[in-house]
Amino acid sequence: MTQTGADALARILAENGIDTCFANPGTTEMHLLAALGREPRLDLKLCLFEGVATGAADGYARMSGKPAAVLLHLGPGFANGMANLHNAKKAATPVLNIVGEHATYHLAHDAPLTADIEGMAQTVSGAVATPQTADEVAAATAEMIAQVQTGMVGTLVVPNDAAWSETENTSATPAPVEKPSFDTTCLKKAADALAKPGALLLIGAPHISSRMAQLAHAIGAATGCTVRAEAAVARMARGGDTPALVRIPFHVDFATEALKDIETAVLVGSRPPVAFFAYPGRPSHLLPEAANTIPLCDPAADAETALQALAEAVGAQPAEPPQHPSIPTPETQAPIDAETLGQTVAALLPDQAIVVDESVTNGAHLFALCGHGPAHDWINNRGGSIGYSMPVAVGAATACPDRKVLCITGDGSAYYTLQALWTMARERLDVTVLILANRKYSILANETSKIGAGAPSDRTNPLMSLEDPAPDWVKLAEGQGVSACAAATAGELNAALQKALSKPGPSLIEVRM
Amino acid sequence: MTQTGADALARILAENGIDTCFANPGTTEMHLLAALGREPRLDLKLCLFEGVATGAADGYARMSGKPAAVLLHLGPGFANGMANLHNAKKAATPVLNIVGEHATYHLAHDAPLTADIEGMAQTVSGAVATPQTADEVAAATAEMIAQVQTGMVGTLVVPNDAAWSETENTSATPAPVEKPSFDTTCLKKAADALAKPGALLLIGAPHISSRMAQLAHAIGAATGCTVRAEAAVARMARGGDTPALVRIPFHVDFATEALKDIETAVLVGSRPPVAFFAYPGRPSHLLPEAANTIPLCDPAADAETALQALAEAVGAQPAEPPQHPSIPTPETQAPIDAETLGQTVAALLPDQAIVVDESVTNGAHLFALCGHGPAHDWINNRGGSIGYSMPVAVGAATACPDRKVLCITGDGSAYYTLQALWTMARERLDVTVLILANRKYSILANETSKIGAGAPSDRTNPLMSLEDPAPDWVKLAEGQGVSACAAATAGELNAALQKALSKPGPSLIEVRM
Repeated sequence: MTQTGADALARILAENGIDTCFANPGTTEMHLLAALGREPRLDLKLCLFEGVATGAADGYARMSGKPAAVLLHLGPGFANGMANLHNAKKAATPVLNIVGEHATYHLAHDAPLTADIEGMAQTVSGAVATPQTADEVAAATAEMIAQVQTGMVGTLVVPNDAAWSETENTSATPAPVEKPSFDTTCLKKAADALAKPGALLLIGAPHISSRMAQLAHAIGAATGCTVRAEAAVARMARGGDTPALVRIPFHVDFATEALKDIETAVLVGSRPPVAFFAYPGRPSHLLPEAANTIPLCDPAADAETALQALAEAVGAQPAEPPQHPSIPTPETQAPIDAETLGQTVAALLPDQAIVVDESVTNGAHLFALCGHGPAHDWINNRGGSIGYSMPVAVGAATACPDRKVLCITGDGSAYYTLQALWTMARERLDVTVLILANRKYSILANETSKIGAGAPSDRTNPLMSLEDPAPDWVKLAEGQGVSACAAATAGELNAALQKALSKPGPSLIEVRM
Repeated sequence: MTQTGADALARILAENGIDTCFANPGTTEMHLLAALGREPRLDLKLCLFEGVATGAADGYARMSGKPAAVLLHLGPGFANGMANLHNAKKAATPVLNIVGEHATYHLAHDAPLTADIEGMAQTVSGAVATPQTADEVAAATAEMIAQVQTGMVGTLVVPNDAAWSETENTSATPAPVEKPSFDTTCLKKAADALAKPGALLLIGAPHISSRMAQLAHAIGAATGCTVRAEAAVARMARGGDTPALVRIPFHVDFATEALKDIETAVLVGSRPPVAFFAYPGRPSHLLPEAANTIPLCDPAADAETALQALAEAVGAQPAEPPQHPSIPTPETQAPIDAETLGQTVAALLPDQAIVVDESVTNGAHLFALCGHGPAHDWINNRGGSIGYSMPVAVGAATACPDRKVLCITGDGSAYYTLQALWTMARERLDVTVLILANRKYSILANETSKIGAGAPSDRTNPLMSLEDPAPDWVKLAEGQGVSACAAATAGELNAALQKALSKPGPSLIEVRM
């Protein structure tokens, strides 16, 4: 049977272990879709908005360790996926976008959907390529897979005639990818620095494994240094045998206060910490101006090996399993606030759960308390673009069908990509969504004073409020085939969460705060 | 009182008649929001997704004739608004984006939300500017207003320190904008050509007024030429005293068939028609290869004056008011299909209604039949990115609070920007939304064969289907504060539409097809 460029693409994806494609295709992707459909090694998942597809690919890769493909329709379809690609880029998640383009000869005519796809793609991708003919598709696909696997978003723009034309070039092999080593020349200097007062070990990396957390903890115990994780880590093992790592606070004042005595920071998979935003009169760098940094291991390099070597260099002893404190139980009638939320979730957290955290202003207790629960993975947003968590939960649940996924999100955040609920229902994904319904962009009310713009006025306050009308998340979920209920007290939340976790498939709880 | 860069921006917007800002701000926009809030001549409207804000600005400008502002949060916020900015760009709608950026000195630190905003903005804007200091904001704002008013999307990126710093430069005046004249040197040639066999008068422009349609009709009557409108016109007066203009069909085969005898096309506010997509074996240009085109009036120029001059040159007589045929009434028990939908809507269309049309595969009868109804405006999508209609309806209803807005959209299309319903409820907008719920991307099932990708397979068919689960649009609307019902027969649709139109405020009908 003759093969097209589209067939070559599908085959090379499958041969290289890419088994899942989150898709929202249009006419220019019909040949690509047909070819992906003919490739039995690939699963196709429909998303009803592109930001769901790109976020799902991000979540899939974080949990499976391999990229998913995303099929998007021309420039505007790509644009709709960009915010979550921004988040994936910042998390160094491998994501492979495939974007249909008009046939090469059609572009000159400026048809309605003609747009500068490459220009859009450059802003959120580490690599962009547009094979011009069917003969070029195989090599371009293999090259893109190799690039993506280094930990980046890659975008392959496929002109329609390159997809539909026949070709004999259907084979190509990606160059093998090896994780770079850490900077061994820094090792002694780093080990010496950590033994001195005012030392910080700051760990980051796309994935902090349980082993990494144990090593970091042991290094801290051996040297007396402060150990911290970056404020947002893409994926982090927690609970069970994993010592609870403390994060650098989001709030610039809390962060600079926490770090004010640091003289030297050893960076393992992390970068020097910076403020999320600039605030008048506050620094951009969170470390004291006079602090030194020792970049032992780049975020793209092998951080676990670096920590192993560092542990040996400082003579660290294998860490004892952590003694987790017991989690307090809130009163049944207690209102749901950040603390009782954290207590309830941490107490019910299933073993091996995956928590996708977009709790924004309600997250501090949640993170701290869950760290004392059973073994689980914690997923956080490194890009700061809200609307990431429900899509990422779609991808995480697709990658790990045997694990419970808990998606905990502010109501304002969830609204951007609420179409993710439909894909959860379509795919029977085992996701429990907690919508933290405080009915406002609470973070903005905090930030406006902090940044010097004054308190919200009668005219600006409504711009931070989701009241009038208050979204009814039970209906928004049920309207998309996801069973849902609301909870207004700690006891109601406890009962609802127990029920949701007791059966497979998606459910949603509107948590009234 | 001292003024900041943000104050200067707000003042210059207001002084130049910009009275509405659709907004989804974040921390980097808090100074801008506070300044906009202090400017009493500006109304602020919250949208819970940026694509709603940009589409609303598009709809507002189409109906008011002046730009609205859009306030967006950094690169990812801008990215979420890009698909509808693409549509606005293609429609030559004036839209003024204001995007907060990190403080200039903070950019080097690559904070989580740092992105290439200008790179994103270039892809969908005719003009992009980033004032670097508070002193530069006033002039940059005035210059951007002048550019936008020529009929383009413009994006002003405002670094946070430029917004919050004090300045004495708070005045600037936009250069006056004049619509260019049509190409008078072509006039005689165009008039002569239209009198010959095989002549086409093709009209477009962002806004086809009733007067333009009358002139075009009169020219047709005087010369015997074929008169057509472009396939998608941004805004078009129809019904009542306006003769019904026929559009060039969307389907490439129907379009080339309809135009096969054209020897010369006179273009007034239009461009040579091209196929929406490339299809193997079909042409990109819809006119016969040998046809000549006479570009009498550029889309950005004054098309009404061009038609007036052309009418005089061919000796056209003032057109008689059109005799509209009566609209057939479907049987009460008839299923709702494209034809009975068109009949029901056309019969109930309120005088001076604004119809925002995203009916996709169900639109042919609707457009034709409504042309015989009372006077109304018809809004169509020139950019082809779906998810445009509910946001555009938000803007149209904001611009014209005394007119009924009817938004008619496919269910697949509506899903991309369903957050628009919330703003309709918040602002009590007089919009009736008809969701044409066929529960599939019907156009793709048509297109896949047409483009040579074969019929959908068992594996690809689910990617074009919104069944499993079928979205419940009544719940999706009620969950956002919009009253809703469903209709499954022509009689039910008639009753539901009558009821929806009888009272002010938003409502939604799930039209089961």
